[in-house]
Amino acid sequence: MNEDKFRRAAGEVADFIVDYLKGVKDRPVLPSVEPGYLHKLLPANAPQQPEAWQDIMTDIQDKILPGMTHWQHPHFHAYFPTGSSYPSMLGEFLSAGLGCVSFTWLTGPAITELETVMIDWLGRMMGLPKELLPYTEGGKGGGVIQTSSSECVLVCMLAARNKTITALKETQPDVEDCILVSKLVAYFSEEAHSAVEKAARICLVKTRVLSTDEKFSLRAETLREAVEKDIASGLIPFFACATLGTVGSSAVDDIGGIGRVCAEKDLWLHVDGAYGGNALICPEYRYLLNGFQCVSSFNSNPAKWMRMGADGTIMWVRDKNLLIDALSIDRIYYLEDDEEQHRIDYRNWSIPLGRRFRSLKLWFVIRMHGVEGLQSAIRSHVALAKMFESWVRADDRFEVVGTVEFGLVCFRLKGENTLTEVLLQQINESGKAHMVPASLKEKYVIRFTPSNWHYSEEITKKTWDIITCFAEVVLRESRGDGQGLQGRESADSGEVLGREEGVLETS
Amino acid sequence: MNEDKFRRAAGEVADFIVDYLKGVKDRPVLPSVEPGYLHKLLPANAPQQPEAWQDIMTDIQDKILPGMTHWQHPHFHAYFPTGSSYPSMLGEFLSAGLGCVSFTWLTGPAITELETVMIDWLGRMMGLPKELLPYTEGGKGGGVIQTSSSECVLVCMLAARNKTITALKETQPDVEDCILVSKLVAYFSEEAHSAVEKAARICLVKTRVLSTDEKFSLRAETLREAVEKDIASGLIPFFACATLGTVGSSAVDDIGGIGRVCAEKDLWLHVDGAYGGNALICPEYRYLLNGFQCVSSFNSNPAKWMRMGADGTIMWVRDKNLLIDALSIDRIYYLEDDEEQHRIDYRNWSIPLGRRFRSLKLWFVIRMHGVEGLQSAIRSHVALAKMFESWVRADDRFEVVGTVEFGLVCFRLKGENTLTEVLLQQINESGKAHMVPASLKEKYVIRFTPSNWHYSEEITKKTWDIITCFAEVVLRESRGDGQGLQGRESADSGEVLGREEGVLETS
Repeated sequence: MNEDKFRRAAGEVADFIVDYLKGVKDRPVLPSVEPGYLHKLLPANAPQQPEAWQDIMTDIQDKILPGMTHWQHPHFHAYFPTGSSYPSMLGEFLSAGLGCVSFTWLTGPAITELETVMIDWLGRMMGLPKELLPYTEGGKGGGVIQTSSSECVLVCMLAARNKTITALKETQPDVEDCILVSKLVAYFSEEAHSAVEKAARICLVKTRVLSTDEKFSLRAETLREAVEKDIASGLIPFFACATLGTVGSSAVDDIGGIGRVCAEKDLWLHVDGAYGGNALICPEYRYLLNGFQCVSSFNSNPAKWMRMGADGTIMWVRDKNLLIDALSIDRIYYLEDDEEQHRIDYRNWSIPLGRRFRSLKLWFVIRMHGVEGLQSAIRSHVALAKMFESWVRADDRFEVVGTVEFGLVCFRLKGENTLTEVLLQQINESGKAHMVPASLKEKYVIRFTPSNWHYSEEITKKTWDIITCFAEVVLRESRGDGQGLQGRESADSGEVLGREEGVLETS
Repeated sequence: MNEDKFRRAAGEVADFIVDYLKGVKDRPVLPSVEPGYLHKLLPANAPQQPEAWQDIMTDIQDKILPGMTHWQHPHFHAYFPTGSSYPSMLGEFLSAGLGCVSFTWLTGPAITELETVMIDWLGRMMGLPKELLPYTEGGKGGGVIQTSSSECVLVCMLAARNKTITALKETQPDVEDCILVSKLVAYFSEEAHSAVEKAARICLVKTRVLSTDEKFSLRAETLREAVEKDIASGLIPFFACATLGTVGSSAVDDIGGIGRVCAEKDLWLHVDGAYGGNALICPEYRYLLNGFQCVSSFNSNPAKWMRMGADGTIMWVRDKNLLIDALSIDRIYYLEDDEEQHRIDYRNWSIPLGRRFRSLKLWFVIRMHGVEGLQSAIRSHVALAKMFESWVRADDRFEVVGTVEFGLVCFRLKGENTLTEVLLQQINESGKAHMVPASLKEKYVIRFTPSNWHYSEEITKKTWDIITCFAEVVLRESRGDGQGLQGRESADSGEVLGREEGVLETS
């Protein structure tokens, strides 16, 4: 592909993206393909000779789009949003064009340094304690972009494990690491992200999955009791993860109280704010920073709620040396210089070695939206969630479960696990909207969240119409009055209830 | 940013990329900035209001490029190449534009399926055993794109650890995992990538760093002796990593022999072919597959040597269930269906949960270059390395260390550690070329590898001229004849030896 063809193709991709995002509302949000569909459509072997650009773009239209779950669809309400914006796409494109990676400072000074500046900018936007920020005079704080929030939790748990083992070794130098690790306990709530459990499994530490309160938040007293019980049995509590915006219901743990327990008992406190942490850029959410003076590490994922495209999660840490101690391994070809402690070598802050220039897209996003633009995007999602909540509350057939803290509403057919599950299944199968469930203290709920970035009251209302139409059918069916699931073609709800046409038949 | 501005900006980025790649040869390959340079150039706080696109692009030129180490520079010979090509950039751009991620099959069927098809294509291009490929009838094989080779090694070691512990638990159900893990031993050579040591540290297993032979390859007998010694002391060998193309000298371990030892002693054998593995797409390298019938897992990084941009490393595994057993954690909102075992949920194959649409760029790269185009890129690097090797061998002042297996030549001033180090320092400080050292059995060597994709005999020759000019100066200086490092402005070598001008003064 020569330069002119590349320029033209880049223009075509830009046009394609614009058209796709404008037209995505007319596609079914979930595809109707079966597992293995693409294997049947593509050649078994790679082509020996180069193919034409146009053939590839045709395949994108005909073979890829019909198999996509459209995260930018206005009626995609499953999970939290995935960031998207034109500035982010341009940043990713430019990053790919430069073709540079970094792992030590010298392999990409601008890559390392823009990353550090962005972490400082974002930390200031959120009002984080200055001890967590990289440029605080004489401080040990700092931050890094990880691929995913899962890795943030894992590397922090590894750092905490290493810190605790190192301390234990001072008095028990002859005991093997594994034997010491067998006494370590990590704490998190039943609502914590699956990544915390995965990290604990990798780290080989014991876990205590703690009950939450009636708002699905972890209370400090619950943690304190568990920690004291374990200490009494000779175990060593070393790590706790609190969540600022759980997946299930966007609940916020009692970070203030948990922080005091962790400080008193010498536990590493990680706060997972993958989704909710982004709200800290709005001053009205700063009250959530109560307790951050005791936080050892924190992650927030701008690729969820700050219009930055995947991947990239920001992590701040109070003492970067603890992370580096746990993860650094030297080799002569890394050309590191012990005298140059002021150089940041991000390879020692994460599991991967090489890293692409991800901070470019965050820089583009922040500069082209401005802090106020990003605040307003978050506020619009919160306002729409509150509006949706008010409709649910006003409808006797439904109930809201939990608190609407950010942009997520958990609801269900009143008192009904089974019918709520049927309702969700019907909605998802229709292709008109996509939502996922959560299980909150045995209550099966449907999660509604605005994901799209051009979300409006009208779209929210339409989603509510879809939900209520299907609910009517499900409830009728459950009463056995004959106008149930089989009667979807009834005049009043036919348009809403029909299956969206799949673009591709994959029989 | 509206649609029209986005389209225009995308065109500007494409133009910028073309101009950058054409002009990069005129920049110093290493920047002359000091640590912290960018923090001084950028505002302390993010802007409240949106900024103009043009201001951002101006900053890219004035503040970012001067701080880049240019991996696509023709005289960048440090490390192995990082992939780059126009098709790859377009794939990354399109992926960002779609704004979709996936972690279960349903969250992105096309994302999962194209990834699986690409892994199958690439595995077939390399002639891998069919047991490692995803579509083999009745097979347990499969593959996944990880962010980095480091993660490939880590997840495979985790799977091996889990497999061994699960087996041990059958006869020792009451012994804690940590206690069992304290007996596990992982084996790799002194030339293995630092990622293997990092993975072992994370997994808490014992390690044996084995000596290599005179060609810097790990021999099967060395492994066998170590394994048998450990078994005799009551330890449990469980994992070995062989390397197909070491970082230090691109040596290839004796995979055939190592495979037989691993099969006999029931060790998981991972082969790290991050760089060298790519060569398997050329039939003349297929002899390296000897022993692959005993390989449990293998990784190769097309983002190094197959013109695909970072990030993304491909990993194949013989029994995907062992990986899934080690890494899967269920939650109701993942909407997984136990009955649908034929769905691939890649979240259970890796540490991160969400993943972007990375296979798009691999698809674009393979289709637009064709297999033959990619073979010819690899062969051209090998041919240039062989040519470079012949010049080194023809010059009495130098010696080649190790075997030139792929596109890497390790050389040094004959018998000279100290002077070779001085030579490398002079070359790097000049900004004219960038190379890094390795230490091969106490021999300090300089690594030369063609990294750029429009590499030619002329450029290779110029690099050799730079090296020999600096060598002359270093050798003269060492003889104390006055025409040493201070005499660089001498008429014959002035042009070659002067410092490339940094674009930015950052004093």
